[in-house]
Amino acid sequence: MEAKNPKDSRTVMTDMVLPSETNPLNNLFGGELLARMDRAASIAARRHSRRITVTASVNHVAFNQAVPLGSVVTVEAAVSRAFKTSMEVYIDVWMEDRYNGKRTKANEAIYTFVAVDETGKPTEVPELEPETALEKERFAGALRRKQLSLVLAGKMKPNDATELKALFSNG
Amino acid sequence: MEAKNPKDSRTVMTDMVLPSETNPLNNLFGGELLARMDRAASIAARRHSRRITVTASVNHVAFNQAVPLGSVVTVEAAVSRAFKTSMEVYIDVWMEDRYNGKRTKANEAIYTFVAVDETGKPTEVPELEPETALEKERFAGALRRKQLSLVLAGKMKPNDATELKALFSNG
Amino acid sequence: MEAKNPKDSRTVMTDMVLPSETNPLNNLFGGELLARMDRAASIAARRHSRRITVTASVNHVAFNQAVPLGSVVTVEAAVSRAFKTSMEVYIDVWMEDRYNGKRTKANEAIYTFVAVDETGKPTEVPELEPETALEKERFAGALRRKQLSLVLAGKMKPNDATELKALFSNG
Amino acid sequence: MEAKNPKDSRTVMTDMVLPSETNPLNNLFGGELLARMDRAASIAARRHSRRITVTASVNHVAFNQAVPLGSVVTVEAAVSRAFKTSMEVYIDVWMEDRYNGKRTKANEAIYTFVAVDETGKPTEVPELEPETALEKERFAGALRRKQLSLVLAGKMKPNDATELKALFSNG
Amino acid sequence: MEAKNPKDSRTVMTDMVLPSETNPLNNLFGGELLARMDRAASIAARRHSRRITVTASVNHVAFNQAVPLGSVVTVEAAVSRAFKTSMEVYIDVWMEDRYNGKRTKANEAIYTFVAVDETGKPTEVPELEPETALEKERFAGALRRKQLSLVLAGKMKPNDATELKALFSNG
Amino acid sequence: MEAKNPKDSRTVMTDMVLPSETNPLNNLFGGELLARMDRAASIAARRHSRRITVTASVNHVAFNQAVPLGSVVTVEAAVSRAFKTSMEVYIDVWMEDRYNGKRTKANEAIYTFVAVDETGKPTEVPELEPETALEKERFAGALRRKQLSLVLAGKMKPNDATELKALFSNG
Repeated sequence: MEAKNPKDSRTVMTDMVLPSETNPLNNLFGGELLARMDRAASIAARRHSRRITVTASVNHVAFNQAVPLGSVVTVEAAVSRAFKTSMEVYIDVWMEDRYNGKRTKANEAIYTFVAVDETGKPTEVPELEPETALEKERFAGALRRKQLSLVLAGKMKPNDATELKALFSNG
Repeated sequence: MEAKNPKDSRTVMTDMVLPSETNPLNNLFGGELLARMDRAASIAARRHSRRITVTASVNHVAFNQAVPLGSVVTVEAAVSRAFKTSMEVYIDVWMEDRYNGKRTKANEAIYTFVAVDETGKPTEVPELEPETALEKERFAGALRRKQLSLVLAGKMKPNDATELKALFSNG
Repeated sequence: MEAKNPKDSRTVMTDMVLPSETNPLNNLFGGELLARMDRAASIAARRHSRRITVTASVNHVAFNQAVPLGSVVTVEAAVSRAFKTSMEVYIDVWMEDRYNGKRTKANEAIYTFVAVDETGKPTEVPELEPETALEKERFAGALRRKQLSLVLAGKMKPNDATELKALFSNG
Repeated sequence: MEAKNPKDSRTVMTDMVLPSETNPLNNLFGGELLARMDRAASIAARRHSRRITVTASVNHVAFNQAVPLGSVVTVEAAVSRAFKTSMEVYIDVWMEDRYNGKRTKANEAIYTFVAVDETGKPTEVPELEPETALEKERFAGALRRKQLSLVLAGKMKPNDATELKALFSNG
Repeated sequence: MEAKNPKDSRTVMTDMVLPSETNPLNNLFGGELLARMDRAASIAARRHSRRITVTASVNHVAFNQAVPLGSVVTVEAAVSRAFKTSMEVYIDVWMEDRYNGKRTKANEAIYTFVAVDETGKPTEVPELEPETALEKERFAGALRRKQLSLVLAGKMKPNDATELKALFSNG
Repeated sequence: MEAKNPKDSRTVMTDMVLPSETNPLNNLFGGELLARMDRAASIAARRHSRRITVTASVNHVAFNQAVPLGSVVTVEAAVSRAFKTSMEVYIDVWMEDRYNGKRTKANEAIYTFVAVDETGKPTEVPELEPETALEKERFAGALRRKQLSLVLAGKMKPNDATELKALFSNG
């Protein structure tokens, strides 16, 4: 399997915020954004792996920015690192003001997908080779996030999470 | 404001998995489950605070269990700890097999909501008093999760996250 | 087949009223509520019978209470009586005010479901044993309602509907 | 207000049965049909009254006929009798086989709507003058159904329901 | 195969305009109307051919009339001419004002469908015999539209489009 | 108002084909694709004009390529020419095979939008300056299409449609 670049999986999903997707303050429901990001990210993972892909986990997501009714929302997803059968996908969310077109960062999120065959069995995926500085930074961070994920799931001892431990103990 | 118990906000949302919500393996999309959990959890946060509530963050979520088309899915949400204007909501997801009715744990997730007034400004919420052993355990864990969240958002130095630091450095 | 209690099939479906489900007065469409009740009741019937269940009939339903946009609606369904292959399901609907959380009874309805196998052929279901006073009252009323249903469908002569006849002729 | 005929309010809603509306046997959910009938009937009631109309009640509905995925379903609704501020709407449902086009009666239902002003207050509606034999029969039956509805709601004593009493006691 | 009349395929789809289908001016999205017309027209084509039908093309459509939220919209479709395996379907769209019930023409559109078997292969369809003056006019125009369609698709030389050429060159 | 380039309005909407959007052959409904294209094109028109935009017309659209369930569909829209208050938007649709990722052109379409203010009154839009060869070709063709549209709407005499007349008469 030939290695791929993040641009091979980059997926752009632009759409409006409709009335049925908003809360009493007329802003997009957090859950709707989580669902849109999942769809975009699963397409990115499929483009990298050319397999059926299923959501394995969602990293911590913070909603710092309300997205009002009528906004144009752009979800951009690309694979940030490939492991044996899983892929981390980094998602950037932008919103445009309806009136002045000003584009602001609304959100970031990180999902992990597993590539599977028709019976649901995990299968190998190509490696990822980051190209830009941002892609390389996200690639490097992915290992630390994977360890955190394993620790939180009780599948790795905090002590063995070398990348993570460094972060908290070097004071 | 009088303190409340987790049972005051407990929210149960039982529903089927429909064809329009499934991936090519005929299992529920991760994103759809994230959206259902957001709706149930926001109702729980509203029941605790009697305010409009908006999703502030979603903790790490792992999808260990595929939920097949036609399953009955039960999402149970309850506030696990209240801070000044925010509430952590703990969500348990159960699924029932269509044929034998066997109920299995499909997922767990933790969302945080902020209570706001009609202008979107954060407002205070009642305290939470846990009653059962499980509620007390989740209440205790909420502080550690809040610190992790602040560290990941760059709003707290890892060194100051006392609860979290203990976890990683006492080897 | 072992008899079951109403609590074995009790199904709770809590959800919000969204803008796409409301009429020009900003209240929930009657038809949307009928559809939600059908989904909750069919899950209750499935929990009792562990079979595929199909809607056989809906009793008279009155909509006395408007349910405004943004309300939290709780649909509670439980089997109230089992016949040979069919089940009567009693549904209570509650709504909560968005602001003060006041919970009021919004509706009641009674649906009947038939349990079928994969080919659509009716199959036997367990008996129901009511436990509480309310469950016993609903259990008793079910026979009268079944007779009314048969009379209205032209499958029973009014004269043979002993339970029903008593109601109208003992003046 | 000038009286109207049933043909003035006749509403035809033809549409397909889509995958997201079907149960595990690939037939239309009863609840979806109830919601479609409500939409068609509320348009008929609006055409008769030229007012906002809200669902007041649904008569007993029997589902005798499964409606398979891919069928074309035609819902026909027309006002069958007008009272002071309410209207009874009679609904006939037809389905067409996807292959041979054979059209069969799938269902009948009777809904009652109330005409209201912008504040939700009931307002008077025109009288209905039936023309055909079938329209006259449905017009006559409406009074009996109204009494049954009042008796079931506890708003009329069975003894006073003269139309209804005749049905059950003349043995 | 016996010829059919336009009335054999006439399809009426009446429904409301809901909040989730409207743009920031609270009028029906053009795209939603295109989708409704496609569903109605495909049912008309199926009724004429008794086959699975797939959309082959949409003629030029102009949206001259805004359709406000809460309007009742009636889409009427009927086959206007049958070719060997394809059918032209003419669609008239009417809207009714919510308050005074005034019915105005909102739109016209022309779609072409192909009849196919279960493998997707085109199959022959019955001829169409127009009856009314309007049906005859639409039947005659269909040939000119077919030529325009072929010219635009590069499948016919403008010079060979005899019907069309007459329209533009006889000055 | 400063002139803009097509790339300023380019809008990319990538998404999957879900079961609820497919016909009996398991291919995307033509009407669903028309609706997706309308949403993408209206965002492009809004990005060019920074105004509310409403669909004015849809050019002839041919569906040459079936889009199967589970495909990834990419809709790309960009303004191809600006007139006084209206904009022509050119839309390219690509689909990717679920298994081998092969990307093929599925469709092309051309929509026209009008920019309006909050009261629905048309307002001026910036000019468009095409840059690439393809953009220049589409820009040139837009005038011919506008004439055809006016002729078809009976607002221009065929004889005055100089661009169009040349196409049909120079034999």
